[in-house]
Amino acid sequence: MTNIHLAAYILSPTSHYIGSWRHPLSARNMLDRAFFEDIGRTLEEGLFDLAFLPDILAIPESGGSSDDFISRGSRGVINLDPTQILAVIAGVTRHLGLGATLSSTFYPPYLLARILGSLDHLSGGRVAWNIVTTADDMSARNFGQEAVSEHDSRYDRADHVLEAITRLWQSWDGDALLLDKETGAFADSTKVHRVDYDAGGISVRGPLQFPPTPQRHPVLFQAGASGRGRDFAARWGEAIFLIQSNKDDLRAIRNDIRARAAAIGRDPDRIKFFPAVQIVVGETRAVAKARQQALQDWTDPAVARALISQYLRKDLTKLSSDTSLDHLLEEFAVKNGATSSIKVILAALTEHGQTVEAVAQRYAETHLAPQFVGTPADIADSLQDFVEAGAADGFVITPTHLPGTFDDIARGVIPELQARGVYRTSYEGTTLRDNLGVGLPDHTLWERSHGKL
Amino acid sequence: MTNIHLAAYILSPTSHYIGSWRHPLSARNMLDRAFFEDIGRTLEEGLFDLAFLPDILAIPESGGSSDDFISRGSRGVINLDPTQILAVIAGVTRHLGLGATLSSTFYPPYLLARILGSLDHLSGGRVAWNIVTTADDMSARNFGQEAVSEHDSRYDRADHVLEAITRLWQSWDGDALLLDKETGAFADSTKVHRVDYDAGGISVRGPLQFPPTPQRHPVLFQAGASGRGRDFAARWGEAIFLIQSNKDDLRAIRNDIRARAAAIGRDPDRIKFFPAVQIVVGETRAVAKARQQALQDWTDPAVARALISQYLRKDLTKLSSDTSLDHLLEEFAVKNGATSSIKVILAALTEHGQTVEAVAQRYAETHLAPQFVGTPADIADSLQDFVEAGAADGFVITPTHLPGTFDDIARGVIPELQARGVYRTSYEGTTLRDNLGVGLPDHTLWERSHGKL
Repeated sequence: MTNIHLAAYILSPTSHYIGSWRHPLSARNMLDRAFFEDIGRTLEEGLFDLAFLPDILAIPESGGSSDDFISRGSRGVINLDPTQILAVIAGVTRHLGLGATLSSTFYPPYLLARILGSLDHLSGGRVAWNIVTTADDMSARNFGQEAVSEHDSRYDRADHVLEAITRLWQSWDGDALLLDKETGAFADSTKVHRVDYDAGGISVRGPLQFPPTPQRHPVLFQAGASGRGRDFAARWGEAIFLIQSNKDDLRAIRNDIRARAAAIGRDPDRIKFFPAVQIVVGETRAVAKARQQALQDWTDPAVARALISQYLRKDLTKLSSDTSLDHLLEEFAVKNGATSSIKVILAALTEHGQTVEAVAQRYAETHLAPQFVGTPADIADSLQDFVEAGAADGFVITPTHLPGTFDDIARGVIPELQARGVYRTSYEGTTLRDNLGVGLPDHTLWERSHGKL
Repeated sequence: MTNIHLAAYILSPTSHYIGSWRHPLSARNMLDRAFFEDIGRTLEEGLFDLAFLPDILAIPESGGSSDDFISRGSRGVINLDPTQILAVIAGVTRHLGLGATLSSTFYPPYLLARILGSLDHLSGGRVAWNIVTTADDMSARNFGQEAVSEHDSRYDRADHVLEAITRLWQSWDGDALLLDKETGAFADSTKVHRVDYDAGGISVRGPLQFPPTPQRHPVLFQAGASGRGRDFAARWGEAIFLIQSNKDDLRAIRNDIRARAAAIGRDPDRIKFFPAVQIVVGETRAVAKARQQALQDWTDPAVARALISQYLRKDLTKLSSDTSLDHLLEEFAVKNGATSSIKVILAALTEHGQTVEAVAQRYAETHLAPQFVGTPADIADSLQDFVEAGAADGFVITPTHLPGTFDDIARGVIPELQARGVYRTSYEGTTLRDNLGVGLPDHTLWERSHGKL
């Protein structure tokens, strides 16, 4: 039976749609607790699997200046700490999962283990960590470095960070805590283990300062789409966040990562794939179409160009608006570390035209992810189609405005999916692992298959 | 008029009293959200200024082993991330301040600025940062270092960290955010400034990814009592957390730091001094005395010795129980970085006897801070006496058990203080700065007085 999982992408002032904050129905209180509490309640009403918070560690810059980004309100200009936001959402929900993007490159591993594990305890086992290696030099400069290191070396580091953190999360045996007031035996010290991890530049001693959480440890989300990223995903990922422009590419990458995971002994069905999709829903198709049309009016073409320039690490702002991108693509493919992004751009070029203007516009509106536009029934059709085609197990829904998009989905689309029998009518369990159906962690399989355990 | 400020020290399984978790009335759910929510509600009912969370970044160790600490349930064996706990408490309160201890040595400065600033926004301006430099090598080993650096160099680093972070917190002018949906002007980019801090090994570019908080930035708490620590406190501290064993020493250090602050042009009355005191309250003096007596029964002498050994960084566990400490103290005074701790030990020796056993017992019960025992009226007398003697502006109350101690204080002691007119009957304002009466930050005064601005 099809069972569609849903995650809600929460970022303000912009979502994947850069005009989000200008949307006349968007809330303005993006720094207040109430903003996030409202969204959290709506998502739990809609039985979403999780709130999914991206993270950006610096105000973006292009051509040496952040001015355009700041003045027009781009992604990352405002970005509160995602785990603080999730702790707030945890307070007004009981089942909703809490997904935090945090950089394996710039957070000390012990802090990652402690922050995520603490939130997992305090929420009763509802946390996911979306592991990112952070590709931009602006972030590096907020952490005492001139530039990020090369793509594959960031993943090498991430492997070591994950080895250290998963050991920390399991440094207490499940039955180590005794809490015997009478005898004064607090814990069995033979069941609490130092980690003594020291490899690949990552050194951490442990043990962590608490036992495993109700779901053992946070669910591991991962988003790498390059070859190196896919190997990392196959080894560690329990849920995979994907940005691809179409169903065929999604199916291909899903099949590939599932095959890589199976090759090391993992059950591919316990890995859930969540492509980003943008939803524009209306009570009629005409309303939805008009809403889609309106989104263009709040997209600033200059910011769109600056954004895609930053994404490609190549200043496109000076090119004339109808320049073909063909001659630039080979150069990017060689020089740019984020090779998977290039492929998404190429696919978008094929689908939406060959000019800077066309791709920049599409990028600014959807981040090049699929856009589903229509009535609740139309949206349900599209979601169901992607899952039944083997392109997805669930979706990270990127809203056009907050909290309105999620209100509309919870009240319109969810009942439609439920009526079709493809969406839960109550949460399956108490932890995020229960609801996602990913089971307990099995990340020792890679080490076993490589003779390291 | 006397106006006593109160902070609640929240740590489990042990507080300053190491038998805390064994107390028959202590709650057992120290990993659950409900545990902290209950305490938060009680503190706001009692109109406390703030919840004050210490932090320990490693399970302690003495003589190469953590076994005693783990098996008997010592400080730091369980320690969730303090900002996650405070975000939970923020959700069930509207006025209570939220004080987080975080290490200036082991957290990357950009993260410190972002985590604390995010919580300050989400709580509507209720956050304090208790700045610590972290003195133990066990913590260092969780962060890839063999040992902590020398005492004064940690404070030198902290000065640079504070310079960087306070600039980040003020990198947006107060009127930079525009949010003009009509014109698409999100912010005035001429009012958002890079920080470009690069000194003393601290390098951070900025700007931070959000405007100043409702109270400009978190209140700065500080706990250094050494000469170098006092200079740091005089420069940065807006509230000072002190651990001294008696009123005279507290008055002396308060006067000294006030004088140092005045010397650089700060108003000493805007710096609030919070000594740690332990409160044992009963409905009669006989009940309180019996409660005090019972605390000794849940104190494990072996753990007490291991704890004071760790505190002094000297293995005292092998000494016979009545050994005099006199001959060791000179050695400590020379070798040990935490010189102010030695002075507290010396004072405690004078007050409570010269043996290892006596000091260890006292340390295990109270951390050598004053202990107030009696009826609500007795407790009120002691609190009032310390404030009127110029030894304190408020107190960090360390409980013997959670949440019971704070229940008793909120219901018994607070009404007594209110009846005497020395405690608020409602919160003064909406931010922690309003309630503490520390005003807006004035930490540029040091730079002005040193010709750096």
